[in-house]
Amino acid sequence: MTAGDTVTTSTDTVTTSTDTATTSAATASRPDPRLSINQATIKYADLATALRVTAEAGVQAIGLWREPVQAVGLKTAAELLAASGLRFTTHCRGGFFTLPEGPARRAAIDDNRRAIEEAATLAAAGAEGSTAILVLVAGGLPEGSRDLIGARRRVRDAIGELVPDAAAAGVTLAIEPLHPMYASDRAVVSTLGQALDIAADFEPSVVGATVDTFHIWWDPDVLAQIARAGREGRIATYQVCDWKTPLAADVLLSRHYPGDGVIDFGSLTGAVVDAGYTGDIEVELFNEDIWATPHDEVVRRTAAAFGAAVSPHLAPLGR
Amino acid sequence: MTAGDTVTTSTDTVTTSTDTATTSAATASRPDPRLSINQATIKYADLATALRVTAEAGVQAIGLWREPVQAVGLKTAAELLAASGLRFTTHCRGGFFTLPEGPARRAAIDDNRRAIEEAATLAAAGAEGSTAILVLVAGGLPEGSRDLIGARRRVRDAIGELVPDAAAAGVTLAIEPLHPMYASDRAVVSTLGQALDIAADFEPSVVGATVDTFHIWWDPDVLAQIARAGREGRIATYQVCDWKTPLAADVLLSRHYPGDGVIDFGSLTGAVVDAGYTGDIEVELFNEDIWATPHDEVVRRTAAAFGAAVSPHLAPLGR
Repeated sequence: MTAGDTVTTSTDTVTTSTDTATTSAATASRPDPRLSINQATIKYADLATALRVTAEAGVQAIGLWREPVQAVGLKTAAELLAASGLRFTTHCRGGFFTLPEGPARRAAIDDNRRAIEEAATLAAAGAEGSTAILVLVAGGLPEGSRDLIGARRRVRDAIGELVPDAAAAGVTLAIEPLHPMYASDRAVVSTLGQALDIAADFEPSVVGATVDTFHIWWDPDVLAQIARAGREGRIATYQVCDWKTPLAADVLLSRHYPGDGVIDFGSLTGAVVDAGYTGDIEVELFNEDIWATPHDEVVRRTAAAFGAAVSPHLAPLGR
Repeated sequence: MTAGDTVTTSTDTVTTSTDTATTSAATASRPDPRLSINQATIKYADLATALRVTAEAGVQAIGLWREPVQAVGLKTAAELLAASGLRFTTHCRGGFFTLPEGPARRAAIDDNRRAIEEAATLAAAGAEGSTAILVLVAGGLPEGSRDLIGARRRVRDAIGELVPDAAAAGVTLAIEPLHPMYASDRAVVSTLGQALDIAADFEPSVVGATVDTFHIWWDPDVLAQIARAGREGRIATYQVCDWKTPLAADVLLSRHYPGDGVIDFGSLTGAVVDAGYTGDIEVELFNEDIWATPHDEVVRRTAAAFGAAVSPHLAPLGR
């Protein structure tokens, strides 16, 4: 059967519909051009493997993590990335800014300066359209502390210290609000509105927010805050994964393929599109079952899930 | 040593401090007059046992659950409560309002009408100062649904249906925002601000909010929303328990004695006091380890924890 079949006779309604199915299947096998695989999704792949399986699946972009980059060294990582032909979307991750002043806090700030340099180097090495973004996770309450307000103030102060470095390197710091179930031990920034309030002190090109569906889908104010993030030019990156209960026993590992849970990717993705975001979209899955699956299969399944749950809600022309 | 010792000589600084410790110990053995034991804290006690161990510990008030009340029948429950001499603080719980129209939704609404009557009957049977409050848990997303916004609208609509019944019975419906980790399977109302937005359509004497530290401590807007709740006359009940990580494998069972975790009871209790709340304060603990402890010991430990973590932040005269 050829495409020409669809216009030859009046009985071709069925044929046309078959062709549509064929086209959909073809689309499903060619990943959405805006999809980016966050390396955490294939956590146990080394950098070379992660780049290879991502590119071989026809995915065009990747978000990297610091540890596997550092495992091969930044220079080698940049060479591998350049050779892969993939766009670089984000570097994960900086932050952990809640410690009070002292050597440990200084070490954290210095480590974030290195992360900024890594992000700039990798973005320069990636294919055209790469973005120099460093995702920031705020950090939890210091051991023994109950001072949530003070911890949040120290996050803002640390970002203020790093802004000149980020601006000089051309890197955008993307504050990631994490789900409130992580507020005590991982991130004292829990809502998009709170991230935007912190970012508001700085230039949008230097400090933005990470919009991750898993962390903010429950927020009664989420659509308004996504619109606000767009108006304020703060959507640095959009990440998608799904929420499903019961949660994994380790709640960190409870992220699912888009479409496998209860998140309405239509309303959230629509809001992000309406807010003017035209960049790549990462899928970042922390999930023991997914990590135990062969890397190439995970990338294929991620691309298929994204194509089914997210792509229909993107503007037709995409990037 | 007597209290007189503290003023006899200039070397009495140490003596005074010892006396303070003695006084604190005495206070710890006599529970705070505003403490109320929520029956869920001693989940496996039947109603008669729950009333007995609470009263024997010198606690003056109790919050009840529907199942153990129904196990003996409402009339008997009211008689037992009256005989205990305890104040009745809340009835747990109504709600589960997210189902679409149909027989199951009608059954839920009808069941809430019965819960309203139970709350009124129990409040009338309890000691002077009892409060006719029905705690409402919104309910999660219906099976297979991703329509969070629609589910929330149905919660508001159900409350609207019940308001005439509650008003006629003199019962306050106390919408309880639950932690966002329960948003999909238990409560689509996740923040105090959201609960107040729903309540705003109704009289404060009929629809208020449950302020439970466990559920809202992480909220960057929590102090402002507590102040707002006070201004709007909506703090129906204040409940305290603590947050600690790692969370229990079943995140429903991760509530801890006040002081055992990271919640700042000073700032939250201070905000509730400043908002004008003068009522009883419940401790409601879902925790397998606590449930496995003898009931009388749990009540004593709860009273001691409350005395140490919460009482110092209450206005001196209390109720």
